[in-house]
Amino acid sequence: MSEIDKLVAELTARAKTASRQLAQASDTDKSAALKAAASALLSAKDEILAANDQDMANGAERGLSAAMLDRLKLDADRLASIAAAIEQVAILEDPVGQVIDSNTQPNGLVMKRVRVPIGVLGIIYESRPNVTADAAALGLRSGNAVILRGGSEAVHSNQAIHKAMVAGVEAAGLPGDAIILMPTQDRAAVGAMLRAQGQIDMIIPRGGKSLVARVQDEARVPVLAHLDGICHVYVHADADPDMAKAIVVNAKMRRTGICGAMESLLIDQDYPAASELVGALIDAGCEVRADDVLMELDARTVSANAEDWDTEYLEPVVSARAVRGVDEAVAHIARHSSGHTESIITNDQSVADQFQMQVDSAIVMHNASTQFADGGEFGLGAEIGIATGRLHARGPVALEGLTTYKWLVHGQGQVRP
Amino acid sequence: MSEIDKLVAELTARAKTASRQLAQASDTDKSAALKAAASALLSAKDEILAANDQDMANGAERGLSAAMLDRLKLDADRLASIAAAIEQVAILEDPVGQVIDSNTQPNGLVMKRVRVPIGVLGIIYESRPNVTADAAALGLRSGNAVILRGGSEAVHSNQAIHKAMVAGVEAAGLPGDAIILMPTQDRAAVGAMLRAQGQIDMIIPRGGKSLVARVQDEARVPVLAHLDGICHVYVHADADPDMAKAIVVNAKMRRTGICGAMESLLIDQDYPAASELVGALIDAGCEVRADDVLMELDARTVSANAEDWDTEYLEPVVSARAVRGVDEAVAHIARHSSGHTESIITNDQSVADQFQMQVDSAIVMHNASTQFADGGEFGLGAEIGIATGRLHARGPVALEGLTTYKWLVHGQGQVRP
Repeated sequence: MSEIDKLVAELTARAKTASRQLAQASDTDKSAALKAAASALLSAKDEILAANDQDMANGAERGLSAAMLDRLKLDADRLASIAAAIEQVAILEDPVGQVIDSNTQPNGLVMKRVRVPIGVLGIIYESRPNVTADAAALGLRSGNAVILRGGSEAVHSNQAIHKAMVAGVEAAGLPGDAIILMPTQDRAAVGAMLRAQGQIDMIIPRGGKSLVARVQDEARVPVLAHLDGICHVYVHADADPDMAKAIVVNAKMRRTGICGAMESLLIDQDYPAASELVGALIDAGCEVRADDVLMELDARTVSANAEDWDTEYLEPVVSARAVRGVDEAVAHIARHSSGHTESIITNDQSVADQFQMQVDSAIVMHNASTQFADGGEFGLGAEIGIATGRLHARGPVALEGLTTYKWLVHGQGQVRP
Repeated sequence: MSEIDKLVAELTARAKTASRQLAQASDTDKSAALKAAASALLSAKDEILAANDQDMANGAERGLSAAMLDRLKLDADRLASIAAAIEQVAILEDPVGQVIDSNTQPNGLVMKRVRVPIGVLGIIYESRPNVTADAAALGLRSGNAVILRGGSEAVHSNQAIHKAMVAGVEAAGLPGDAIILMPTQDRAAVGAMLRAQGQIDMIIPRGGKSLVARVQDEARVPVLAHLDGICHVYVHADADPDMAKAIVVNAKMRRTGICGAMESLLIDQDYPAASELVGALIDAGCEVRADDVLMELDARTVSANAEDWDTEYLEPVVSARAVRGVDEAVAHIARHSSGHTESIITNDQSVADQFQMQVDSAIVMHNASTQFADGGEFGLGAEIGIATGRLHARGPVALEGLTTYKWLVHGQGQVRP
């Protein structure tokens, strides 16, 4: 057993012990612990910002891009937002103990399904230090212990945030091991986490494609992954042109770097205002990589190649093609979508129904922007990510997705005949 | 790409196509297809029993044990039971299309979670030919295509059952590829199924430890596993002696070979009728492997060693020890249970509540026999297995556990600010 394996075994054992205590903790205790963690975070402002300065200086030295440095950067406002987000999670309804359903059998046995925490969550993420706080808060609120493995760029920021939150949690009487930060940046620690069956109950990767791919390839622990968002908007022949323009421009351009951003636009060949729609995107600063049909409409389009239909740009670029009716739109999406979010724009309810029934993605919208793909916008109060797998939880995942259930059976001495 | 990989790629592609059709099939169509499959099975009785004769002859030649041959054996009655079980599944409520929950956001967006099939299920199982029919029926009822990989002992029986069911399904107008039987016994085919990410959506292993262990080790596709059932019964000081005796003997001896059978008995040191309880088990033909305390009670006990506490016997053998109160019982279970089913016998409700809250197994019973761990007994109408993992589904899994959900969002042109 290597030193790293020993370290991970020790940390997961501590997390498992803490998770047993957390599973029995009351709603009030968990909520109070998060409020204490939020206020500890604000009290440690100077320390956290100093640690972040160090990460920013190291990042600049290592040549991180301006976008990456911006993601890494903390200031008083951002720290206040992080604390406010923890406070928000603290007042969300506790899913633990909820009775999902129950039935009484003819022999008098009562079967109840009751929500319980999953246990120990391993969160593996990249540069944003706010994930440290978000993931810890969502995990603790749902009664789970978390083992956090952040990116090396944010190592000092993560340590300072972690230290403050643990102090808050302990002051509120819950175990500090509820939130464990991996104390090494050795990549072998990630491998050991991924192989920790029985010690870690679920791994949640939050980061770019290569991180998620590594996790999915190596993991023996179940993974709740969110992969690419290759999101489509299909503008049907009966779409309202103003609505279509507003939604398409918003879906692509509001924020181009999020997983719910539209990456591919399908315009029905019978939609009468296609030229206006393509023009509006280009006018908004978007590059449109179009098929031959749509290239005819605007000289500013460029020609799409085969790879464009499977590309998540996360930039002001979109692939666009004409389709012959809803069947072809559904078929294109079945072939090229990553199963995240798709939307149809139409005033024809029966076509919308068909699209929503036949498109097999986590989120299927009608007359709405794909940029709404977000746990907060779905009424979940927060999110740990948008799951694109098919099992356990799908789409935006918040507290419920971090729980499982057990069956409680109440008898009066029944034996099975 | 090897020949086997090519074969599995072709079969999974056919299954995926069928699964798209099944996902859109109506409740009535799926139910009718299963009824047709059940009656096709009965019509093909002679062919199926002749195929089974061949498997039995081969099995005898290969020296299969009497128990294995009994599991393999079909006759007119058993075939009628298999058909009746399919009929039962045909009349279960269709989970697909059920609205799990919905909410309306302040901006007017309506978010609905709707149950949908998982897609393509890979079922890998051992000798019992009835699994071919059960798994196909549960898969089809919940709108999934299945790829079945049965054991080599039952190869002719499985082929005959499969052929009849496909004929029934096709006669009812659903695709025959809804039920695919792996046409080779090459073990490499199992490996290819386990690595078929994106082609197979979930693997369900049904069989012994070595099969499940291989699946969990090699799988890149998510697995719904049921591992050992190391089930405990804890007899508390305030247990009713008659009830305790009846439940303990039933939990162990009704059928010793099922995963819900009690394998370990914990008797509170303050329980007054311990000697009678141990004696009743021995009188019923059970070997009791006891700790030093319980060995004092009956000269017919034998001494337990350290391995006994972690052993699933599946035979008339039980490990038994004295514990000091519910805390020690809970701690013993946390250390040795496989997370399947445990039961407490007590008339003290507060102790029962503590036990049910603190024991972290899929099923936690009070005053009932662990042998009730079965989907039918839980009101699910059937079961594909008892899941001992923590994600997606836990405990008895039937139709709901073979579905996932998608989010449907209904808008009126909303864009995200």
